[in-house]
Amino acid sequence: MREAKRQRGNSFSPLDPTSSEPIYRQIYWRFQRAITDGALSPGQRIPAARALAKELGLARGTVDTAYSLLTAEGYIQSRGQAGTVVTPGLKVRTTSAHVQPSDGPGAIASIRPKASILPFQMALPALDVFPRKIWAQLGARCIRTTRIQDMANPSVYGLDSLRSAIATYLQVARGITCLPAQVFVTSGYRNTLALVSHTLLQPGDQVLIEDPGYPPTRQLLDHLQMQIACVPVDQDGMLVTQGINDWPYARAAVVTPAHQSPLSVSLSLPRRLELLEWAARQQAWVIEDDYDGEYRYISRPLPALKSLDLDGRVLYTGTFSKVLFPGIRLSYLVVPAAQVERFEHVSQAFLGGCPELTQAIVATFMTEGHFARHIQRMRKLYGERREAVARGLKQALGDHISLDAQPGGMHLILRLTQPQSDRALVERLLQAGLYAEALSDCCIASQSHSGLMLGFANIDSQATAAQLGKRILALL
Amino acid sequence: MREAKRQRGNSFSPLDPTSSEPIYRQIYWRFQRAITDGALSPGQRIPAARALAKELGLARGTVDTAYSLLTAEGYIQSRGQAGTVVTPGLKVRTTSAHVQPSDGPGAIASIRPKASILPFQMALPALDVFPRKIWAQLGARCIRTTRIQDMANPSVYGLDSLRSAIATYLQVARGITCLPAQVFVTSGYRNTLALVSHTLLQPGDQVLIEDPGYPPTRQLLDHLQMQIACVPVDQDGMLVTQGINDWPYARAAVVTPAHQSPLSVSLSLPRRLELLEWAARQQAWVIEDDYDGEYRYISRPLPALKSLDLDGRVLYTGTFSKVLFPGIRLSYLVVPAAQVERFEHVSQAFLGGCPELTQAIVATFMTEGHFARHIQRMRKLYGERREAVARGLKQALGDHISLDAQPGGMHLILRLTQPQSDRALVERLLQAGLYAEALSDCCIASQSHSGLMLGFANIDSQATAAQLGKRILALL
Repeated sequence: MREAKRQRGNSFSPLDPTSSEPIYRQIYWRFQRAITDGALSPGQRIPAARALAKELGLARGTVDTAYSLLTAEGYIQSRGQAGTVVTPGLKVRTTSAHVQPSDGPGAIASIRPKASILPFQMALPALDVFPRKIWAQLGARCIRTTRIQDMANPSVYGLDSLRSAIATYLQVARGITCLPAQVFVTSGYRNTLALVSHTLLQPGDQVLIEDPGYPPTRQLLDHLQMQIACVPVDQDGMLVTQGINDWPYARAAVVTPAHQSPLSVSLSLPRRLELLEWAARQQAWVIEDDYDGEYRYISRPLPALKSLDLDGRVLYTGTFSKVLFPGIRLSYLVVPAAQVERFEHVSQAFLGGCPELTQAIVATFMTEGHFARHIQRMRKLYGERREAVARGLKQALGDHISLDAQPGGMHLILRLTQPQSDRALVERLLQAGLYAEALSDCCIASQSHSGLMLGFANIDSQATAAQLGKRILALL
Repeated sequence: MREAKRQRGNSFSPLDPTSSEPIYRQIYWRFQRAITDGALSPGQRIPAARALAKELGLARGTVDTAYSLLTAEGYIQSRGQAGTVVTPGLKVRTTSAHVQPSDGPGAIASIRPKASILPFQMALPALDVFPRKIWAQLGARCIRTTRIQDMANPSVYGLDSLRSAIATYLQVARGITCLPAQVFVTSGYRNTLALVSHTLLQPGDQVLIEDPGYPPTRQLLDHLQMQIACVPVDQDGMLVTQGINDWPYARAAVVTPAHQSPLSVSLSLPRRLELLEWAARQQAWVIEDDYDGEYRYISRPLPALKSLDLDGRVLYTGTFSKVLFPGIRLSYLVVPAAQVERFEHVSQAFLGGCPELTQAIVATFMTEGHFARHIQRMRKLYGERREAVARGLKQALGDHISLDAQPGGMHLILRLTQPQSDRALVERLLQAGLYAEALSDCCIASQSHSGLMLGFANIDSQATAAQLGKRILALL
């Protein structure tokens, strides 16, 4: 308490009631500065809000507000009876050019963990080889040639030129025949899945999902109050027969047929047909999440499940996050022709449309042929990197691990020969500056999978992978 | 039927079963071409799907698919027993450089109504005076200086620099004190409102909305299965007392305090306080839609309702659509400090984040001072244009109309002295190439308002307005 008092004295001497900065914000800044300065250290106790308010002659609420901001920002933590402390383990980036409170709110950013790219980062294409120069040229051209009518409200369905380019691309690359009017441009997979749910499903509807599966799918459906129906996955993808038998009233299924997320296996043709037949019979919907169908290395990319959809039951979702870059925030949905009107209607209520500029750049990138070339180059590169990283890891980790034989995707699955918690290992890796995700975090009902998922697209050689493998070995 | 047969003969001779283009798509293109060529005219009957399938030796489903696409695209309409006809009144843009089916799906765009800007277009800033050169320079710079880490997954909450710039701006311009961590960048008002609903409300919750009000608010809440509670509006805004008495269990209220949408009146201070007190007492939420609070012409802009929010019950939503341009698709939400964590949690499930590039351009535009300058110039310009357009309309329409005295906003409300349907008039105006919206389309329970809403921001002089007024007069 004495320590806290001293700090408080230091921190609060210049409180200024005549300042345009409200008092609670001044308090916030003083603490923020004291913490980033190192005057208050992680774990150190700070005065109780009531005591501080009394001391400063302020309303209790003023100090509470400051404290709740500090808590929300992660600077401090309440420990109940034990008082309030500076967050233990808080990593503060102290710099010599320290941000002053007078710089305003921007100062906060300085201690937030900066989004940096770690080795083995998942779902991240090889950004080092992205054709940035061409991209910047197209971008500058698109901005320069923006017409006044392009600045008005964009179509909520997407830019016509982009919808056309996507339809053409899907025909060639994924065997999907559709018209531009069936293509809806969205701002990401979550946005797409929410649009499908709002258009075709009701809260309480049963939805089949893969287990293990992609956690955001489950999270979003949960939030939308769908009833999650977990279906196990084997080496041929979702166990369709079991799923439709166990959940006879399911209204939809979300699947990742090209490379099952996370196991990267492909849904076999008999199961694809069974799923489509089920959907037609039950008038249910199949949502095909084709997040990286382009990246298959052992043979040509499989045609999309959607290409077999004769009954108009498949909603196809694709994204530019993996084939261009995630920061672009552009995805798309292909709906059956007969559903176009329903989707247009709901889009009017839910979507605002995506930025015209981003759409224009992507459309130009596609129609001028850069897109197809880029994907082709990446497919070759990823095939090589995948091979190199697998060899490097095996070289360093030997019998401690086995690697799944996957036909495609952008990550490797590394299984540990000696049973241990993959979650705990992921924690240790992150602390050591290496990225990984735990396979068991993708499991819902089934807890049968354990292992590490490692993105390989940004690792450029076997030697690098072997070095990283050694760092993993040290943490096993 | 004979006529249809002739056309069909013309259109279908070159069907090619060996083409890579599926048959249904070939049928689609033939009809599309026949219609755009004028070979089939609006209102003309086309063969029944069954008959056409038989004639061509195709499965019925193949023709059905083509027809449903044509229907979805608006080319044809089913008239039940009376058969299927080319959509009556269909406006076809025939050009000499006609798009061939071999050009692929892009051809469709050629007959879609092109988004052009009509006189009196609503919710559209004065795009003619937007600083496009500066914008293009900043944009080119932002693309050129994109770093690899900027291409990775963006923060779902928004770019740090943009959140800071917004927080700073809101302090100065709207009297709102908040930290960047309280600011969530979204892709539009609908996106914002959906985020708030998912985070703080449950399906079935009662939500107070203004009547007349902004139709998308009602639409979206409807879709999210909220219970809509309509509250009338007078010259001081929403009748708060009546609303909270009539709906004692309401969980939230959506209001447009600066310039009520559509009436443009301001919510009076006593009602603001009453609303805040109600929210604090009931632990309810107030969603402040401040879509154009900057544009007030008779005095300084009013501080936002949020600036009075001592209890952390107000969710503030702002947008760049009106102060920059709608095509940018960028909005934001300010949440109470104590709700930051909840919103971060739900954002992770719902939002994908907005494109890094657009956010970076806007942040630079703000921090380099262009934003404040632009708003200041627009406020002055809109004040002048509003005055000029009001005078021009009055000059042309005289006693046929009265104009509401509104303190701000981007549209005028024109009431008709002789009672007549505002909806029917809007239809006639649109046919004559003039934009307007009907006030009665904003009414829900109350049907007490009738009149035209006319956007004035893009009309540059009294003379132009008087000319347009004469065209309105001719249609009264």
